Amino acid sequence: MNETKVPYGMLAIWFLGQESVVIKGGETTVYIDPYMSDNAKRTYSPPLRPEDITNATYCLITHEHGDHLDSGTIPQVAVNNPAATFMAPGFCRDHMIRLGVNPEQLLDARTDEWRAMPDIRIKPIPAAHEQLDYDPARGHRFVGYLLELNGVKLYHAGDTTVYPGLIESLKAEAIEVGMLPINGRDAFRTAQGIIGNMDYREAVELAVSTGMDTVIPMHYDMFKGNGLNPGYFLDYLYATYPEQKSHIMGRFERFIYVSTCVLK
Amino acid sequence: MNETKVPYGMLAIWFLGQESVVIKGGETTVYIDPYMSDNAKRTYSPPLRPEDITNATYCLITHEHGDHLDSGTIPQVAVNNPAATFMAPGFCRDHMIRLGVNPEQLLDARTDEWRAMPDIRIKPIPAAHEQLDYDPARGHRFVGYLLELNGVKLYHAGDTTVYPGLIESLKAEAIEVGMLPINGRDAFRTAQGIIGNMDYREAVELAVSTGMDTVIPMHYDMFKGNGLNPGYFLDYLYATYPEQKSHIMGRFERFIYVSTCVLK
Amino acid sequence: MNETKVPYGMLAIWFLGQESVVIKGGETTVYIDPYMSDNAKRTYSPPLRPEDITNATYCLITHEHGDHLDSGTIPQVAVNNPAATFMAPGFCRDHMIRLGVNPEQLLDARTDEWRAMPDIRIKPIPAAHEQLDYDPARGHRFVGYLLELNGVKLYHAGDTTVYPGLIESLKAEAIEVGMLPINGRDAFRTAQGIIGNMDYREAVELAVSTGMDTVIPMHYDMFKGNGLNPGYFLDYLYATYPEQKSHIMGRFERFIYVSTCVLK
Repeated sequence: MNETKVPYGMLAIWFLGQESVVIKGGETTVYIDPYMSDNAKRTYSPPLRPEDITNATYCLITHEHGDHLDSGTIPQVAVNNPAATFMAPGFCRDHMIRLGVNPEQLLDARTDEWRAMPDIRIKPIPAAHEQLDYDPARGHRFVGYLLELNGVKLYHAGDTTVYPGLIESLKAEAIEVGMLPINGRDAFRTAQGIIGNMDYREAVELAVSTGMDTVIPMHYDMFKGNGLNPGYFLDYLYATYPEQKSHIMGRFERFIYVSTCVLK
Repeated sequence: MNETKVPYGMLAIWFLGQESVVIKGGETTVYIDPYMSDNAKRTYSPPLRPEDITNATYCLITHEHGDHLDSGTIPQVAVNNPAATFMAPGFCRDHMIRLGVNPEQLLDARTDEWRAMPDIRIKPIPAAHEQLDYDPARGHRFVGYLLELNGVKLYHAGDTTVYPGLIESLKAEAIEVGMLPINGRDAFRTAQGIIGNMDYREAVELAVSTGMDTVIPMHYDMFKGNGLNPGYFLDYLYATYPEQKSHIMGRFERFIYVSTCVLK
Repeated sequence: MNETKVPYGMLAIWFLGQESVVIKGGETTVYIDPYMSDNAKRTYSPPLRPEDITNATYCLITHEHGDHLDSGTIPQVAVNNPAATFMAPGFCRDHMIRLGVNPEQLLDARTDEWRAMPDIRIKPIPAAHEQLDYDPARGHRFVGYLLELNGVKLYHAGDTTVYPGLIESLKAEAIEVGMLPINGRDAFRTAQGIIGNMDYREAVELAVSTGMDTVIPMHYDMFKGNGLNPGYFLDYLYATYPEQKSHIMGRFERFIYVSTCVLK
């Protein structure tokens, strides 16, 4: 990753599995939900060890579930990236601090407002996993993130269904890259305590209805019984909106997204 | 159909599209949700005209939606099958009578009790489309039907999701043939007013968890935007429960199901 | 199997994996390519041990490859079924005899002619795996079998592609059940020495163009790297010929096929 130079107007996106991704633009490297703990339930091993993460400029957490806020990864990120800025929902604050994150470097994910740093702008978006969960003191329990980085606007949905108002708020943002879960939800997974997300059809419809330039599915690959064949996403997309652009990430792929602004 | 003789222990099942099926055993011919009206939204024309239906012993209706209780079909069935017995939820009673069904030949679908006729036993099962809807005066608005006909037990789910208690009540019945919707439901179809059903994964899990001998998917083929590739049903079934038996109906197929009792 | 009684006009078909099937009609039980050897390359274990096969009236072999003519199974079949009749291409004759088959009970598969026994008629059909391979002394090296048993006509293709003349010869036979390989062939498998078959599209087209009543795919499930998702077969069938009847076998399923003649 360190060797990847990303000129203005481009993003490098590494897919580390489920919803773990790294986004790099210019000199800024953003980890979202790094989940590098190995465990018996994973269908494949993580591509990095937690201690290999030494290049984080930002580390964003979407919610407190263990495959997103990973107790086996965050302590190493905190120790090995002393200059990094963390952001997470207020629900995660105590937990993050217990895992070793410096409270002064930990920002609360205040939804629906842009937080501007010199190299990036970040706007947390409420997520409904499967319900919106809001507390006046701590804000939304589940979030996604909208990033404006290196001249490109990217949305990482976190774990969410499509709730009233989401389409409108995303549509207003002119998103170029949308990363959306597709594993869905159903009565039998609910009965096992598995909280669900939008499914592949909803992800396609959300991308099209909000005008995303390129949609990337995620959250279909890590756990047996909660996965989805990404081919279904593509089948539905291609049959329904053959001109909509998408990209299916190879496992651990580095995908380079090039914004239209570069090409003019 | 009239030429098809169905020996004891077998059922002939004709798939007329969506949830329209005909079940014949012995001399008894049961129509469920006959939907023979042609209309511009159908992806293919019905295989019969309403006036072609002249062999109905029973005509069962699962709920009042137009692709199940078809105002273009029921009047012809009533006129041309004067000896037929009709069954429908109490919610449909007035509508059925207005369409010409003789009130004396129209039975209310009283859920969870067997109604025994000389040639068939019928037990309506509550359906949740997408919610259970119960009224003390009229009973359940949405139902499916359990039939015991010609020595075979068949379940036609109607339009339903998997609600608490459904698995237990079906499991107790030792169902041989289960006909289940697979089109699912999602936020975008909900926003268009399309009320949904179980999806293909839930249909597979329901079949396996209730011990159905053979599961037949339905409700995936008629309307653009509310269909599903039945291959997904098979993919999930085969990947998850390779020994579970299923059958995917060809359009307008006559499928013959043979009960184990015949083979002993 | 022994407890399964199969009335006239029906066949019981057991799917034992890959191309191993058992066909029973009346009192006659036909094994085709029984491959009950366990080995590390199989993705699942065989449902029977070789010594469990004690009810064979006929044992038909399509060609000499080890997953069809199984050196681990044939000796047990020969010992435990002393009254069984064997049939195999002349290419297999010496091998079969070395495995313990009594030469007097071993018939050569003479292609394109019906061999009539009191309870069954059998016509071997040349197969091209991937090429036709014919020798005047020993006949065709690869065959499939057409059976007329218990009033039903069934075709088991063996390992074959669709070669010139096959469609015409099958069309003339009014086949009710066609069992066809779907794993296909390609340059990369060829480079590994894997000899291929028709693919899922060719199987669908062959079934439709020859007028098979019901088509059953096979040879997609046993070996990693040479399998195929049977959902693709169904996808193509349903998208292209929605009225064509098919059946996808559950692993080890007993499927009952009922000929139209029974229902009149």
